[in-house]
Amino acid sequence: MKPTVVIVGAGFGGLRAARALRRAPVEVVLVDRHNYHLFQPLLYQVATAGLEPEQIARPVRAILRRQTNADFRLADVTGLDVGRRELATDSGPVHYDYLVLAVGGETNFFGLDSVRRHGFALKDLPDALGIRHQVLRSFERAVLEPDADRRRALLTFVVVGGGPTGVEMAGALSELIRLVLARDYPRLNIKDVRILLLEAADRLLGGFPPRLSEAAARTLWRKMVEVRHGAAVADYDGAAVRLRSGEVIPAGTLVWAAGAAAVSLTGRLGLPTGRQGRVAVEPTLQVRGHPEVFVIGDAAYLEHDGQPLPMMAPVAIQQAVTAADNITRLARGEAPRAFRYRDPGTLATIGRNAAVAHIRGIAFTGFPAWVVWLVVHLIQIIGFRNKLFVLLNWAWDYFFYERASRLITTP
Amino acid sequence: MKPTVVIVGAGFGGLRAARALRRAPVEVVLVDRHNYHLFQPLLYQVATAGLEPEQIARPVRAILRRQTNADFRLADVTGLDVGRRELATDSGPVHYDYLVLAVGGETNFFGLDSVRRHGFALKDLPDALGIRHQVLRSFERAVLEPDADRRRALLTFVVVGGGPTGVEMAGALSELIRLVLARDYPRLNIKDVRILLLEAADRLLGGFPPRLSEAAARTLWRKMVEVRHGAAVADYDGAAVRLRSGEVIPAGTLVWAAGAAAVSLTGRLGLPTGRQGRVAVEPTLQVRGHPEVFVIGDAAYLEHDGQPLPMMAPVAIQQAVTAADNITRLARGEAPRAFRYRDPGTLATIGRNAAVAHIRGIAFTGFPAWVVWLVVHLIQIIGFRNKLFVLLNWAWDYFFYERASRLITTP
Repeated sequence: MKPTVVIVGAGFGGLRAARALRRAPVEVVLVDRHNYHLFQPLLYQVATAGLEPEQIARPVRAILRRQTNADFRLADVTGLDVGRRELATDSGPVHYDYLVLAVGGETNFFGLDSVRRHGFALKDLPDALGIRHQVLRSFERAVLEPDADRRRALLTFVVVGGGPTGVEMAGALSELIRLVLARDYPRLNIKDVRILLLEAADRLLGGFPPRLSEAAARTLWRKMVEVRHGAAVADYDGAAVRLRSGEVIPAGTLVWAAGAAAVSLTGRLGLPTGRQGRVAVEPTLQVRGHPEVFVIGDAAYLEHDGQPLPMMAPVAIQQAVTAADNITRLARGEAPRAFRYRDPGTLATIGRNAAVAHIRGIAFTGFPAWVVWLVVHLIQIIGFRNKLFVLLNWAWDYFFYERASRLITTP
Repeated sequence: MKPTVVIVGAGFGGLRAARALRRAPVEVVLVDRHNYHLFQPLLYQVATAGLEPEQIARPVRAILRRQTNADFRLADVTGLDVGRRELATDSGPVHYDYLVLAVGGETNFFGLDSVRRHGFALKDLPDALGIRHQVLRSFERAVLEPDADRRRALLTFVVVGGGPTGVEMAGALSELIRLVLARDYPRLNIKDVRILLLEAADRLLGGFPPRLSEAAARTLWRKMVEVRHGAAVADYDGAAVRLRSGEVIPAGTLVWAAGAAAVSLTGRLGLPTGRQGRVAVEPTLQVRGHPEVFVIGDAAYLEHDGQPLPMMAPVAIQQAVTAADNITRLARGEAPRAFRYRDPGTLATIGRNAAVAHIRGIAFTGFPAWVVWLVVHLIQIIGFRNKLFVLLNWAWDYFFYERASRLITTP
């Protein structure tokens, strides 16, 4: 009887782990509460009407179709019994011989309950569609609003967090509004629109070299995004943002991209969580005392050169390969190996022809960085059909200053 | 001061009326509760994962961008005061000098409340996405269901109504399941799947020549759709369909395409409704006693050769042109003209290479009819981008036996 490897989470880590085990003498069961793998780095483009959900997502069953030793199970994991080696799910228990937890992160609101209630996160497809509908609906409301102050508040969009997600979101939102919606609403005064990017620290893109942070901020200003440093949100009631400084900004929409994702599932599963709510793992990615349980990606806490590994796709993907390899070694009776991270570089785009890149120690910006960004992301999207449709969409929007997806499809 | 023409409904009729008035000396206000025009004839392809919502819909503001005398208003019409010439909407009153009601139809459940509660209609994008998610979720549930009878019930899909919508829906559902999902779920026995098409009359496609009805039924049988004539639904509780004959069919999914749409908005607006819940209009499409109010499309009742005009897009489009023309004539002090219907023919597709067509008295089937169907529908979709993406999707699915949109995106 082949051992069963249960992988929880069909994100970058979980999916790569399943694929890495395709020739191993094991049965793989991939569990996720969604039936698709999501290409999260482009989620902000769904939120800003540039791409459609199905272009950045692919059904897990379609991906695993040809992998004969893998099965998919649509289920929400609710508990873990490490003694009996059994997961509890909403569709019954699932037994494992080896377990890979690749459950990813959740949005961290740092205890700001008012922001959680009235603001928008950007973690999943429903989040992204929610933001898209909110932006479009704000314009429809504004065009009928006779009161000038209320109209300006409806047209004020606050993005919180100056990491890659916040920077990309603010840039894309500015282009959606100034290049596309401005033409849809000729009766609205475009000067009533405000887009703010709030960052608590004193520079954007903290993980990048300072030169790139400066370039990103300059590009955003050129796109008429108000970039605010040292601006920490204290409260948001759906109508106005209050900063810790006491400043009040009337704004109908707040998007929370203030990074550092925390993981709650691993906590609920009874595993010991450490810094950032992540599970501290051995260098082999195993949980101490449970060599058959692996944790990878955002959910795992491991240090690299004295720093916690960032919550980013490349880490999850590389750890998935190590975890799969270690499971194969354990099944053969060999000793597992330690994980080693190779930094592939970082990229962030800010809009048309504008991006910042830091690859192998070289920092560059502008059009070259933007082309690198395009190519790297196109390559990573799973499935030729998705690649084709994303490329066509990008080309169309680039040349015609358009966005296809301006439908409000929820009540 | 130019007179204001208010058009309610951005479907085929309302949109065409707005465009037909683009050079008339009037101000046009188009009101709809959605911000998009929907190409309803392809809605069943959204329901069966072949196309995405944004490929068959286009924002009204994008369509009207270059029409300087037209404005759009996102609003739900709640009342009509013909004396004061004013519409009540959820975003305030709207005054008109001329009114065009192009409000379309609603699904008629013929008083079957249980079907309304547990079945799926197919009238709007949320309906279509609801059906898509239901089909995919039924397969996910079935793969985990140990009880054979319950599994078969989950995999039984009943389509009610043998008109074009029901025929196209049943054919597309069969292809989705037998060509695509069968490969996604290798552990399911495809013999557990049942697709039924229930028609109360003794033939499908009542409006077509009998020869085409036979051809459609034969094609559906070849796609393993059980076609039942003389089968009238009495009740559906979400688990089993009860027919008037007493027969009980356990089925987890029921799609209600039993045609004849009834209109309730016109009733609520206080206009006198006649047969099929439609507003009886003069041959000039005016409401008797209110020459400034026009009703067109599904909402209007008018006879042609002694028969009520069908509730179909060509009728609405032709009436829109007449109504717009008559408004221009009234504004100039001329007499309005009577509407004359020219039948452009009818088409229905049943799947790959299969369709039936009846054009200018010539009935034909199979591959030629299918090609005509493809071309006619591609031409009618608004916007070159949508045409391109629909064509690419069709080509891909045709050659690779695939469906891109197999994501379950609602909880």
